[in-house]
Amino acid sequence: MSYFNSIENIPYEGPTSTNPYAFKFYNPTEKVAGKTMEERLRFSVAYWHTFVEDGSDPFGVGTMQRPWDRYSGMDLAKARLDAAFELFEKLNVPYFCFHDVDIAPEGDSLRETNQNLDTIVGLMKDYMKDSETKLLWNTANNFTHPRFIHGAATSNNADAFAYAAAKVKKQLEIGKELGGENYVFWGGREGYETLLNTDMKLEMDNLGRFFHMAVDYAKEIGFDAQFLIEPKPKEPMKHQYDFDVATGYAFLQKYDLQDDFKFNIEANHATLAGHTFEHELRYARINDMLGSVDANQGDLLLGWDTDEFPTDLYTTTLAMYEILKNGGLGKGGLNFDAKVRRGSFEPEDLFHAHIAGMDSYAAGLKIANRLLEDQVLENIVTDRYSSYSEGIGSTIIQNKADFHTLENHALNTPDIQHQSGHLEKMKAVINQYVVTTFAK
Amino acid sequence: MSYFNSIENIPYEGPTSTNPYAFKFYNPTEKVAGKTMEERLRFSVAYWHTFVEDGSDPFGVGTMQRPWDRYSGMDLAKARLDAAFELFEKLNVPYFCFHDVDIAPEGDSLRETNQNLDTIVGLMKDYMKDSETKLLWNTANNFTHPRFIHGAATSNNADAFAYAAAKVKKQLEIGKELGGENYVFWGGREGYETLLNTDMKLEMDNLGRFFHMAVDYAKEIGFDAQFLIEPKPKEPMKHQYDFDVATGYAFLQKYDLQDDFKFNIEANHATLAGHTFEHELRYARINDMLGSVDANQGDLLLGWDTDEFPTDLYTTTLAMYEILKNGGLGKGGLNFDAKVRRGSFEPEDLFHAHIAGMDSYAAGLKIANRLLEDQVLENIVTDRYSSYSEGIGSTIIQNKADFHTLENHALNTPDIQHQSGHLEKMKAVINQYVVTTFAK
Amino acid sequence: MSYFNSIENIPYEGPTSTNPYAFKFYNPTEKVAGKTMEERLRFSVAYWHTFVEDGSDPFGVGTMQRPWDRYSGMDLAKARLDAAFELFEKLNVPYFCFHDVDIAPEGDSLRETNQNLDTIVGLMKDYMKDSETKLLWNTANNFTHPRFIHGAATSNNADAFAYAAAKVKKQLEIGKELGGENYVFWGGREGYETLLNTDMKLEMDNLGRFFHMAVDYAKEIGFDAQFLIEPKPKEPMKHQYDFDVATGYAFLQKYDLQDDFKFNIEANHATLAGHTFEHELRYARINDMLGSVDANQGDLLLGWDTDEFPTDLYTTTLAMYEILKNGGLGKGGLNFDAKVRRGSFEPEDLFHAHIAGMDSYAAGLKIANRLLEDQVLENIVTDRYSSYSEGIGSTIIQNKADFHTLENHALNTPDIQHQSGHLEKMKAVINQYVVTTFAK
Amino acid sequence: MSYFNSIENIPYEGPTSTNPYAFKFYNPTEKVAGKTMEERLRFSVAYWHTFVEDGSDPFGVGTMQRPWDRYSGMDLAKARLDAAFELFEKLNVPYFCFHDVDIAPEGDSLRETNQNLDTIVGLMKDYMKDSETKLLWNTANNFTHPRFIHGAATSNNADAFAYAAAKVKKQLEIGKELGGENYVFWGGREGYETLLNTDMKLEMDNLGRFFHMAVDYAKEIGFDAQFLIEPKPKEPMKHQYDFDVATGYAFLQKYDLQDDFKFNIEANHATLAGHTFEHELRYARINDMLGSVDANQGDLLLGWDTDEFPTDLYTTTLAMYEILKNGGLGKGGLNFDAKVRRGSFEPEDLFHAHIAGMDSYAAGLKIANRLLEDQVLENIVTDRYSSYSEGIGSTIIQNKADFHTLENHALNTPDIQHQSGHLEKMKAVINQYVVTTFAK
Repeated sequence: MSYFNSIENIPYEGPTSTNPYAFKFYNPTEKVAGKTMEERLRFSVAYWHTFVEDGSDPFGVGTMQRPWDRYSGMDLAKARLDAAFELFEKLNVPYFCFHDVDIAPEGDSLRETNQNLDTIVGLMKDYMKDSETKLLWNTANNFTHPRFIHGAATSNNADAFAYAAAKVKKQLEIGKELGGENYVFWGGREGYETLLNTDMKLEMDNLGRFFHMAVDYAKEIGFDAQFLIEPKPKEPMKHQYDFDVATGYAFLQKYDLQDDFKFNIEANHATLAGHTFEHELRYARINDMLGSVDANQGDLLLGWDTDEFPTDLYTTTLAMYEILKNGGLGKGGLNFDAKVRRGSFEPEDLFHAHIAGMDSYAAGLKIANRLLEDQVLENIVTDRYSSYSEGIGSTIIQNKADFHTLENHALNTPDIQHQSGHLEKMKAVINQYVVTTFAK
Repeated sequence: MSYFNSIENIPYEGPTSTNPYAFKFYNPTEKVAGKTMEERLRFSVAYWHTFVEDGSDPFGVGTMQRPWDRYSGMDLAKARLDAAFELFEKLNVPYFCFHDVDIAPEGDSLRETNQNLDTIVGLMKDYMKDSETKLLWNTANNFTHPRFIHGAATSNNADAFAYAAAKVKKQLEIGKELGGENYVFWGGREGYETLLNTDMKLEMDNLGRFFHMAVDYAKEIGFDAQFLIEPKPKEPMKHQYDFDVATGYAFLQKYDLQDDFKFNIEANHATLAGHTFEHELRYARINDMLGSVDANQGDLLLGWDTDEFPTDLYTTTLAMYEILKNGGLGKGGLNFDAKVRRGSFEPEDLFHAHIAGMDSYAAGLKIANRLLEDQVLENIVTDRYSSYSEGIGSTIIQNKADFHTLENHALNTPDIQHQSGHLEKMKAVINQYVVTTFAK
Repeated sequence: MSYFNSIENIPYEGPTSTNPYAFKFYNPTEKVAGKTMEERLRFSVAYWHTFVEDGSDPFGVGTMQRPWDRYSGMDLAKARLDAAFELFEKLNVPYFCFHDVDIAPEGDSLRETNQNLDTIVGLMKDYMKDSETKLLWNTANNFTHPRFIHGAATSNNADAFAYAAAKVKKQLEIGKELGGENYVFWGGREGYETLLNTDMKLEMDNLGRFFHMAVDYAKEIGFDAQFLIEPKPKEPMKHQYDFDVATGYAFLQKYDLQDDFKFNIEANHATLAGHTFEHELRYARINDMLGSVDANQGDLLLGWDTDEFPTDLYTTTLAMYEILKNGGLGKGGLNFDAKVRRGSFEPEDLFHAHIAGMDSYAAGLKIANRLLEDQVLENIVTDRYSSYSEGIGSTIIQNKADFHTLENHALNTPDIQHQSGHLEKMKAVINQYVVTTFAK
Repeated sequence: MSYFNSIENIPYEGPTSTNPYAFKFYNPTEKVAGKTMEERLRFSVAYWHTFVEDGSDPFGVGTMQRPWDRYSGMDLAKARLDAAFELFEKLNVPYFCFHDVDIAPEGDSLRETNQNLDTIVGLMKDYMKDSETKLLWNTANNFTHPRFIHGAATSNNADAFAYAAAKVKKQLEIGKELGGENYVFWGGREGYETLLNTDMKLEMDNLGRFFHMAVDYAKEIGFDAQFLIEPKPKEPMKHQYDFDVATGYAFLQKYDLQDDFKFNIEANHATLAGHTFEHELRYARINDMLGSVDANQGDLLLGWDTDEFPTDLYTTTLAMYEILKNGGLGKGGLNFDAKVRRGSFEPEDLFHAHIAGMDSYAAGLKIANRLLEDQVLENIVTDRYSSYSEGIGSTIIQNKADFHTLENHALNTPDIQHQSGHLEKMKAVINQYVVTTFAK
């Protein structure tokens, strides 16, 4: 059966198409810098937002019209799976992502939950045989259930720690079973509500232990996915331990985990932490820690996670710039951790939203690639830092300078000549690239 | 003499020009919806940021390289004037704006200050005879000097109130002398540092009195400029009385000033108040209070007034959309209350920055105009609110409904049918307009 | 039966009591400035947070342990009612507040919903006969149900407008039936998600119409409660029309409603709008618009409505200072629109939280009253503004000054002498009052 | 001569004193937990804010009345020195801090600047011989001068790097000369204005190199001060590399500097980064990186660094709680990196402000110490985490658990029992401690 029978496979029709069910910028087979758009962008659908989310918010109940909601329990899980692969195919996305609770209902016991998972995973594997869509990553939801009220790996309650471990163990097995290319940890409850009753050291030590056990178990079962930590500063907790990429990097170094993990960076989480998205990507990139991306956007005038579909072309351009400079995302991809607005409750909105997101990243890719081909920013940077290619600058870079030689240089360099940073000029150039890339 | 002798008059060369000293989108004589771009955009240069600002910030001294800074006192004032009209002509801007202290130095007494102003105003009038550039607005700086430490019209000190009045009186006279089309009040110190020592009622009553006196004096001297209040929520004060447009509108209504004032709306002030720029424009527009615009932009991840030159095309598009819907700005204009970054210290950056700002608004104008021509948003709105054109909706609009008729309707309307808001689809369409408007 | 059988009536035991189920500062019969604490503080319990809230958040399901949750439907409604009056009595609170949906379940039709309400209201009236606890205010929840997805009085759909009206009509009748002293409007969905599809003028005009109909109907049925608008800037909507008190005041003036409404001011909403709580109280007070208070607190480092129980003594002190200066709240009260944290899930936490809130406001009352008795701030203010009691200042206040007389004064007042604002000294004094008020 | 001749040495007079020039809580010789308040609090005056700051802000010029401002050049530097030691003595503070540019004017060359420094340092050393006040830390101001416009150690210009190094070299020598107990690095310009023109990797590598050279030089000259990094997220830069403690810790680990540095944590910088002050202290403490404190406070409703004197007793209590748990600050202290408000321009305000700050921290110390003596939070924490003392929890802590044993435990632990977090109760208890600590 079809859940989206009013919608055909989404074609590419070019920038001026007026067909709302067509891609305007995303042409999967078009090559950009030697690879197809599909290879470069590695889009992924988020199971939770697209097939589970009901549109509720803290002040209102669900609004979403979802034809599969006439089912319940395991039947609902199966209907969602059916709908999912229909949408994957019609959008032609190469990847999807899920949490355990997205795909199968929790049972009355962990055993029953695992059986439910096994059933669905079996069916999913069958779907995947006939589908081009692969698993970008899976994860365990260790934050929704009341058992995780005080945390999972950082709970004050060892039983909750054990339960969380059991859930991750199962997901590692499922990831291996389904050929998942990455495995993500988002610590929704790994943080605190108040320092007053929190043993922060014990909690962070335990988080380190938990990750080491996860690494060990993945090795034991031969699951070679890239492990990813997903930073977020706050919400639901007052403070979350994986505040931003830098905080996560401090943690990984302290607990000697930096070789086993990279980061899954979400745009909305970046801005909630006070950073631009491109900052987080850059920080990860230069530390060789850029793993994957949760491609959404927030509203900078709102203080909570809005998880909007990404449409800001400045952001997609600068994100794709970082990703191109990184040589791509490796095993990672662009996962739409994004939900349609509560008011966009029709099934068709799921297509409008994904088309908007995919087109926005495709446009960003092309604009960023033109910037790179023309070496627009590279030439500026090379020129700005040229003083480190010679003289005293060169001795600094080669670790041959010390405070004596530097003081001597300073005493004998009466005037320091600076160049303007020319920020306004650069922004004007970027605007030109944005509006002329799709001109003939 | 020339202060910018490396720079010629800025030509229009079209979207793909690589000449940094050319307009790419702003073609003054090009018609958009029946008027020239110059008529529609009414650009203005801000004297303070462009000719006075030195690049200092709270943690650093000035950096700007300005050839006129070799002068001081009245010679400096004259040199700035010379530089100003050179820049106006080379940029071909139709307007400029100033505070009293921007154009002439304060003397040892108010009398001497006024004499300095008279001298410069006389010279300025001469320049204006030979120039196409007119005065969009002038204003009194009643915030920089220590005499305004506790406020001007809202000072706890009646002497400061009187001094502020004297300064505004002089500026009203100068505005008339120079043919200023508007007169702006920005209450930089009209607010409080702490409620603990503040008589808020007396201060707001006094502000109302002050504005009434200003209105009376303008009438007395026959100065028919549009009076404008410029909202800002905070900075430099903890709280400023003109927090945002709605707050200003409450004030004007309470003190019966709503017919004598409109608003000068600044983009960066809007976002500091937690609003989008287009929200403030819309709120003013639908209340017939949209007067003029301070065309800059802020950084939504920074909590202070950055006064950047406007380059975000989404913002300029939505701003021009409101302005076009308003039938233009009347006597108002787009004033670049924007400063080059501290690191953009070369004189040439003043041109790069203005070109970036003018081009961004010109692009916004063209994109907004296409949206309007195609009635993209209008069709959506008409459809969404169609229930008010008939039946119970029509009785509501005509003020014929009451709680009895409405209850009766509700009791007999079992199911309410809603349409999706389709936000994601609308954003995708706007992206198409942004990137294809300049395609051939 | 008892739902809180481990808890006795809460006694007052004084500041050093170690009994967690005792008041330390709130002594209902103690007189402060001539009235009892009970009369001055007029505490109210919020039915929704205390008897309905389940502890869910955007990333987690409910956690609350509530003995009445073994029931459902109308039985649940009755059990909550029973629990409510037990808690009211044990806490000895004089007031409570509710939304329609808090006290009775919605039926399959508006008629059935109203019948459910009638049943519960009848029972509630019986409870109230035997109870000291009265109704501070009731309201209609016009935001949770999907029918209000695009607004209620500001919906694009006239059917939703009518439904909202019918619900308010019913609540006005119930308010009259139960002797409610106020009636509150909180426009949770009265705002917009995006300006792109919003006719802001029509929506605000309709909101004005709605309020006029409500005023008319209350007069028709002889319900003389004080009408209150509750400002909130954002959440759930991107922008809410009642952003803050000033915005609401602009609205009321424009639609000629200022004599029929006052404001219900919530602390957490104040800070989300960028204001201190005391600012909002002050603004309302000096415009004679201070009606009632939602006594909670937010977390200024979090960007959403946390609705915490109020415990910050600086805030409660400054709030009670404004309320004392206002001569009390009239018909209004201090309603704990506050919820226990998700992790505070035991029934006993409801008592801990209310005790914490009541004690914090009682302490604030006593501290504020001492400040007032000692005229600490009054003396500072009188001295600071003394220049308006004589000379030029006096002519300003008497509306006898104009720009001519003020300029003349300024020209002849060479030096303006200011006093320091002494903010640091004032803060030190307030600290002394905070820590010594409960010293013997 | 005296610069503060209206003020005597500040006595301790107890909580109810009405003498504005007396300490109410800070009794230097009173013992708290076995040490005197003076030993525990180690207060320090910030030379820049107290003797140099002029009260200017981005919209206004200086306002401060400072009797030493009748001097200029080296005479001004000497007058400030004189005023400083008078204030140190009258306040009886054991420490002070300075930047190079605070104590001596920059000359026309680095050589001349260093000579100026030598002169003043010689005089300062003489003052210190007769004074109880010691040097907590000194530092080089590498952010105010235009030569640091694009950074110091992270400048794109190697000449600026060298100049910064020369300045730090000199300050290390001066620190040694004056017996400084710490040396601070605040990277005011170490960050970026825009990523577009920034080589973030090279800049951070260079920052690492710079710190290594500083460590090497300190060892070479036998200067054994504790090195401190002071995090700040933004302002003046768009992004600063030392965003918060966690970010700094990531950096120190990556560049193998974690054994040579600790953190100087500023309250206002913590909140600008989205953290509570106590969070930053806790994070540093549990990583053994808590070095020293910049004791001020920000305004959480304002988005810039207000550097207010600390008066919030909740914050001082929780800060002193962390410091007591840390066993004190070692070589560090509580430095008032705080400035009187622009409106508090009288010299006397410097005393009011320091008294307010010292009293607030002294009160915080006593309240925190009572909390610790009563083990209020310790008992809660011990109870909350008791599951890690036995059974499965114990195996986790001992690193004996793995995903197999944990899954086995989870499968056989059907119900997880949680305790309430009781946040509301804890906050009520803290209020009791705040208001009763100074009761007899």
